[in-house]
Amino acid sequence: MDVTKSNFRSVLEGIDDELEKASFIAIDTEFTGLNDGGSNKLSSLDTPAERYKKVLNGSSEFLVVQFGLSIFTFEKKVSKYVNKTYNFYVFPHTSMGGLCDKKFMSQASSLSFLATQGFDFNKLIKEGIPYLNLLEEEKVKLKLEKRNKFSNVDSKVPCHNNEISEIPPDQKGYVDHIVSKVTTFFESNGNDEEKSPAILEFQCSSLQSELIFSHVRTRYPNLLFVSAKKTCGGCTVTVKKAASSCNLEKESVDKKSLPAAEKPRIEDYMGFSEVVRKITNSGKLVVGHNMLLDLCHILGQFCEPLPEDYEEFKAMTNTFFPRVIDTKVMATTKPFRDLLPNSALGPLLKALLKAPFRNTEIVTAKDFPSYKDDSLKEHEAGYDAFVTGRCLIALTNYLGKLFYASHKAAAVHESSLIAPFYQKIYMMMVTDIPYMTLSGPDLEPSREHIFYVTFPKSWKLHDIFHLFSVHGTVRVDWTGDTSAFVTLHRKENCHFVLSAMNESTLPVGCSVISYETYVNSKHKNVASSQAAEVQEQEPPRKRSGPVMHSNSSALPSPKKSRRDSENPKLNKTQFAVSADWD
Amino acid sequence: MDVTKSNFRSVLEGIDDELEKASFIAIDTEFTGLNDGGSNKLSSLDTPAERYKKVLNGSSEFLVVQFGLSIFTFEKKVSKYVNKTYNFYVFPHTSMGGLCDKKFMSQASSLSFLATQGFDFNKLIKEGIPYLNLLEEEKVKLKLEKRNKFSNVDSKVPCHNNEISEIPPDQKGYVDHIVSKVTTFFESNGNDEEKSPAILEFQCSSLQSELIFSHVRTRYPNLLFVSAKKTCGGCTVTVKKAASSCNLEKESVDKKSLPAAEKPRIEDYMGFSEVVRKITNSGKLVVGHNMLLDLCHILGQFCEPLPEDYEEFKAMTNTFFPRVIDTKVMATTKPFRDLLPNSALGPLLKALLKAPFRNTEIVTAKDFPSYKDDSLKEHEAGYDAFVTGRCLIALTNYLGKLFYASHKAAAVHESSLIAPFYQKIYMMMVTDIPYMTLSGPDLEPSREHIFYVTFPKSWKLHDIFHLFSVHGTVRVDWTGDTSAFVTLHRKENCHFVLSAMNESTLPVGCSVISYETYVNSKHKNVASSQAAEVQEQEPPRKRSGPVMHSNSSALPSPKKSRRDSENPKLNKTQFAVSADWD
Repeated sequence: MDVTKSNFRSVLEGIDDELEKASFIAIDTEFTGLNDGGSNKLSSLDTPAERYKKVLNGSSEFLVVQFGLSIFTFEKKVSKYVNKTYNFYVFPHTSMGGLCDKKFMSQASSLSFLATQGFDFNKLIKEGIPYLNLLEEEKVKLKLEKRNKFSNVDSKVPCHNNEISEIPPDQKGYVDHIVSKVTTFFESNGNDEEKSPAILEFQCSSLQSELIFSHVRTRYPNLLFVSAKKTCGGCTVTVKKAASSCNLEKESVDKKSLPAAEKPRIEDYMGFSEVVRKITNSGKLVVGHNMLLDLCHILGQFCEPLPEDYEEFKAMTNTFFPRVIDTKVMATTKPFRDLLPNSALGPLLKALLKAPFRNTEIVTAKDFPSYKDDSLKEHEAGYDAFVTGRCLIALTNYLGKLFYASHKAAAVHESSLIAPFYQKIYMMMVTDIPYMTLSGPDLEPSREHIFYVTFPKSWKLHDIFHLFSVHGTVRVDWTGDTSAFVTLHRKENCHFVLSAMNESTLPVGCSVISYETYVNSKHKNVASSQAAEVQEQEPPRKRSGPVMHSNSSALPSPKKSRRDSENPKLNKTQFAVSADWD
Repeated sequence: MDVTKSNFRSVLEGIDDELEKASFIAIDTEFTGLNDGGSNKLSSLDTPAERYKKVLNGSSEFLVVQFGLSIFTFEKKVSKYVNKTYNFYVFPHTSMGGLCDKKFMSQASSLSFLATQGFDFNKLIKEGIPYLNLLEEEKVKLKLEKRNKFSNVDSKVPCHNNEISEIPPDQKGYVDHIVSKVTTFFESNGNDEEKSPAILEFQCSSLQSELIFSHVRTRYPNLLFVSAKKTCGGCTVTVKKAASSCNLEKESVDKKSLPAAEKPRIEDYMGFSEVVRKITNSGKLVVGHNMLLDLCHILGQFCEPLPEDYEEFKAMTNTFFPRVIDTKVMATTKPFRDLLPNSALGPLLKALLKAPFRNTEIVTAKDFPSYKDDSLKEHEAGYDAFVTGRCLIALTNYLGKLFYASHKAAAVHESSLIAPFYQKIYMMMVTDIPYMTLSGPDLEPSREHIFYVTFPKSWKLHDIFHLFSVHGTVRVDWTGDTSAFVTLHRKENCHFVLSAMNESTLPVGCSVISYETYVNSKHKNVASSQAAEVQEQEPPRKRSGPVMHSNSSALPSPKKSRRDSENPKLNKTQFAVSADWD
């Protein structure tokens, strides 16, 4: 179901109930861009902290423009899931003027990709649901309070000859023109709307609206300002005649609100952020696919600004999403890894719809889209969230089949078999650290077989291959014109590299150091530049959810979990999430 | 006429001819945003150099998405203009992958405003004409050359046991799967397309496409890679059987181009920049309305990156636009200032369609839109350019009427009466410096009546009014919580201010200095911080047009100008462009 400004309120009213009944929630988002490149370009050697930094610095200026929410509710009696999928169009506020006017980045190729998938940008911009995160909400409140102080106006303090503010010479003609219009307006009488209109409207600039208020009104105290709406390049001012002068105070538009049309209520501004708040407060299992970017955007755009510190990010995510699963982590881990050659969402679903996988039937609720195998909807956030949920069901069922002799389809959220996958978020491209571990320390594999190499600018790929040829084949990851990481395929040869390659044996202009030496020297540089700078740090922000400890070794337990005690054969380590290749 | 990718080539072919015949060219652009606010927010006290800096830093990350080009050609025999108006949709390249993938800013309110005016964003993104400025073109060329060096691949140097690159263990299953598919593909024979397809297509990741190329191809030398198209999250690889092995070299897709689909030609990339190049090379009079942002965006986006230095910007603009007029400068200068109360484009045209102004008839060329008074098209770039041209015609005719007893409508481009307006670009909000002077030194009015004031955070507007009340009414321009510029309406009182306001008479926490003192101290601070920094500067870029000197006191003369000698009554100083209020 597409959700825009027009039906948002009614959807919001029903969401609490839906979330309360939900077994689990699948999410997906579409953004205006992925990464701004440059130093934030992803590397296959990123550590989790480095990856987070790159996402924070290189991706967070892009915007989520579509949020897919797919709610799966297990009906035990019939062993089926009922599904309701929402496709929210979200767009920043556009009529708050100086209070809030978001600027955001877009990547041309991302917009083009969405357009080819049928995304409707006109609908987004005209009908997208606005939102504010908590920090933006605070700023808007503050600005509303300060509005009076900061209006740039001419003084109205009467000077000794009783003049109000002077009219700049280049505006005199205009003010006379308006006075003349108002005079005619006041002189007209009778019931003929054409000859005696009830209201008078005129176009002017913001400055002119101030002058009119000051000067024309003093000549016509019975002139009431009904509204002053900002238009491109100016205002449309609407005035009428007051019924009597004693009603003036009551009826008059507050001068301080010119030229804004309406006085906004802060409660109306949170918009779509309310939905996210309800999701994060529900405590339900949330599932996504390759979801690091989704999480970062959702947190930063609808909850609170992302922290600089990676550990703080982990704590924040655990707070807002105490139970989260990434189906790409599941699909690329044993036992699935060997059964599923392609873990991209579309091919993944295709494979999971066939043997040996088993699917629980999904019934679409009335008035909601039943996608079936509608791959025409691929890359619509709602559809992708739905597919993600389906994948989770099939993957969970398979684990059930592996471990329980006669396994009936059990609700995903009740299965302790997926607990090892909680709080693990997929890391693209990094073969030896395939996921971030939110609920504890990250994987720290040995990188003894990786070297940092510098060489002359003229060197090409084959020159590096040749340099390492005696140690077997390698993978090269460029870090610039004259440097690269080189990874040995034959890890066991790593002990020979540095002894074989030293100043006397290396070609001129080359150097080779271990990955560890490189990282240590980088940390030294960062530490000394941090010591030299004066750093102003904000006090840590209080989180608005329950406190979670990111270093806890205990995985968060599902609210309605079934204990393992009934089946002594269960061996969780058989499919412990691991990064080992073998 | 709307111009998109589909009809761009044919329009481009005809443009040289149109520009050759043109009398003058009107332009207008629509952008994704205006200003990013903060320290780049416009002030009514900006000098031209400060204003340029704010536009450079606060506006240039936004994008022109629509370019209106309205060509007016005067038919002398019938004393009419023939008009052709083009409405170009422009959008960055979206299928050049790593060669060029522009990231740009948008302002939510600007997009919303365009949408309400009927702008079609889906059309923009799908059909917008791409472009590159000169610097981007150079970078793309460089990247194309370097492509080989920077592909991250496994080595293909055979080691002593003749293996090619090793297959990572987690990819073994996938490679076996593809080998199996290809085996079936090669074994199938006959004419039945279903049983013996001509091509084989499969989805994979970039890494997998490299592995396939290395490993599968070695087993099947007759396997030809037709294409490898990048899709979201991976590639679609298409292969076929070579007719015979001797055709392999000829038919095979160059390995180096994987995973990109086509080998791009640099000539195809310039796109819409070609149109701008033709305009700037035409030497024709170019007219815009309130056109500073238009100029900066056009130069930066389609010509060359904008320089940091303001004087360099003036020289650059004069080079690319040797004859430019801003109708907002005309409309806000005598003799027009007193006749035209509202110089916004829409109201301006409305006023110019009535007496005492006179319009030359405009005939729309066949197949082009005849807007008439179609104000429904307002804020479509083509329409706004057309309106701008109409305004110029009416304004020029009026000058002709003023100075020549029996004035026939003369072509705008032949009228020396508008020469005083050349190279003057409107400056919004700044009453004492209403325009930038590109062709000479800028206006430097006295600002003796302006003061820089600091005060406690608790102060409100009336506190400042009160402080200055003895000197008459004032205008306050906030620069922050605790500072503002204060402008006396009664300039003559300026000499009393500083003597009246000193440490002993001012309230606690307040200070008042002259504008001049403030500016001098700001320059001192900038100079000392520049001396402390190590600045790396690129050598000045060569301009690609004729050299113009920005300090020349002679205004550039129109190519086909009529001399003033025939009418001794002409007195240019009567309407010399001036900033004096009186």
